[in-house]
Amino acid sequence: MTPFNTLLEVVKHCDKFPYTIDPQSTEEQHHATPVYLGRHKIGNILPHVLPALTEYNNKTEPAPFVINKDSITFASWVTTAELRTTVMKQLMDTWRANKTFKVLAGWRNELYPVYGDSEQEGNIAFVMERAATPLFGISTFGVHINAFTRDENGHILMWVARRAKTKQTWPGLLDNCVAGGISYSYSVKDTMIKECDEEASIPAALASKAHSVDVISYYTYTDGGLQPETQYIYDLELPKDFTPTPCDGEVGCFYLWPLEKVKETILKNEWKPNCALVAINFMMRHSFITPDDEPDYIHISYRLHRRLEFPTVRKGHSS
Amino acid sequence: MTPFNTLLEVVKHCDKFPYTIDPQSTEEQHHATPVYLGRHKIGNILPHVLPALTEYNNKTEPAPFVINKDSITFASWVTTAELRTTVMKQLMDTWRANKTFKVLAGWRNELYPVYGDSEQEGNIAFVMERAATPLFGISTFGVHINAFTRDENGHILMWVARRAKTKQTWPGLLDNCVAGGISYSYSVKDTMIKECDEEASIPAALASKAHSVDVISYYTYTDGGLQPETQYIYDLELPKDFTPTPCDGEVGCFYLWPLEKVKETILKNEWKPNCALVAINFMMRHSFITPDDEPDYIHISYRLHRRLEFPTVRKGHSS
Repeated sequence: MTPFNTLLEVVKHCDKFPYTIDPQSTEEQHHATPVYLGRHKIGNILPHVLPALTEYNNKTEPAPFVINKDSITFASWVTTAELRTTVMKQLMDTWRANKTFKVLAGWRNELYPVYGDSEQEGNIAFVMERAATPLFGISTFGVHINAFTRDENGHILMWVARRAKTKQTWPGLLDNCVAGGISYSYSVKDTMIKECDEEASIPAALASKAHSVDVISYYTYTDGGLQPETQYIYDLELPKDFTPTPCDGEVGCFYLWPLEKVKETILKNEWKPNCALVAINFMMRHSFITPDDEPDYIHISYRLHRRLEFPTVRKGHSS
Repeated sequence: MTPFNTLLEVVKHCDKFPYTIDPQSTEEQHHATPVYLGRHKIGNILPHVLPALTEYNNKTEPAPFVINKDSITFASWVTTAELRTTVMKQLMDTWRANKTFKVLAGWRNELYPVYGDSEQEGNIAFVMERAATPLFGISTFGVHINAFTRDENGHILMWVARRAKTKQTWPGLLDNCVAGGISYSYSVKDTMIKECDEEASIPAALASKAHSVDVISYYTYTDGGLQPETQYIYDLELPKDFTPTPCDGEVGCFYLWPLEKVKETILKNEWKPNCALVAINFMMRHSFITPDDEPDYIHISYRLHRRLEFPTVRKGHSS
């Protein structure tokens, strides 16, 4: 894989959806059609997805969507979260059965929430299969955990995962110790504790000592579609005598590396792109990457906290 | 002072320059004229500043600026960093002598760098008096240090400063333990160590143990003008037996407070607005504010890492 010259290049390799749309560009990311729910943009559909959506919509009675040149919305009869969920499920089930899009071969049977109006509490607009979210460019949410320990001099050693060679996505690449998507009805912390157990055999009593430290957001894409993502970040200092163990087959093995080695392998392009961002964020928060030494410090920080244009989860204020 | 209902309101009270310009608005922030250096926007001039600038420019031979309806640039004869520095100094000296703008009564005799093309190394376009930067809406850079210790249960206690009642700006309000602007030719770390000594009598040997942990950016304004600001953040855990001491007269006294009290006083609007942002960022990084408990977690993070439209410092990559 092509190595990077700078950490900013690493970040741009993941946060690569254009910041400014150029109608003259030949890249399809510049020609996405927005999906609206009321006045809120909740996703984007790429040109290579649009013909199949139009065909499905024309064949289905009553048509579930209104497809215009500049916008896609649910049809006026699709008025509730339940109806939106049903309509999306029928579409994706059809595409999956017909093998219309390769990305649906990675079907997870895992439901992700899609948020609507952020000004309202309890703003879940509908839920949909996780693997299908890139086809509609839906904003998704996850948790990444940096597990680390310290050597006898107090220097940080980071637990780094090697993804299983059998994984559907990014096989064999380096990864954060634990990571997972936040499914419908799970809290951030519950997801963190569940994934610690599933991916690294870290017991709940230990995982619950992890610290919530940051949230990162970026806008990436792959052959499968658009992925605006938000990742809540936890740091977990493990006892020196504890070793994470692969559990659910998603991880091949774990390494315990000094941050020099983490940075070196990131620049060599050995990491899953978004996980490199989590590790860079960790190295910034732990003074291994500093503003006096890193020329792109501010721009890296901007891109790790990209303001996404989609609604986010909205829970009530307790006070 | 009016209390806030939510932490997001606290953040918006500081990061208050509009995200979208509304030509219909009656607020002058929607009607600023951009200042360009080549193709780079380096500042903005508010309507209440423009008449004095135009008058000065008309009276001065040769005219130092070109003032158009939609842009302000240096005149074509102002070709170097030295000439730009001289031109700006003569303008500000004149306004200061004539008492044209009240903000110049706070003259500091401190030079701030103004950056140009970020793609080039060593990109200082010119330097100018710190107190004058809001009149041109120049992006400025500083350092804030969160000093803290821990009680017998390991809970964080934060050192909070009360600004001197005699300070020109925000007298008597709560503040971070140490903070200061980065003057021309100082590094981030040098500034941090210098300010620790000047503001809190923290010796260099102790200050140098502070950790670089983040950078925050926001776009605020006051009666004095526009202030797009970037603050590098350090955390410094002080020994239990060390007490910061006011030194240069800028701080009235220091308190050692649990984070509950920090958050409570922030919501009561007792803090200098941008320092409240630094404390909120600290509480997020130290798990006192978490995504499961704070409904606006993501939007607070976005606004603490606002992507400013101005060039930033650009040093060379060492590799």
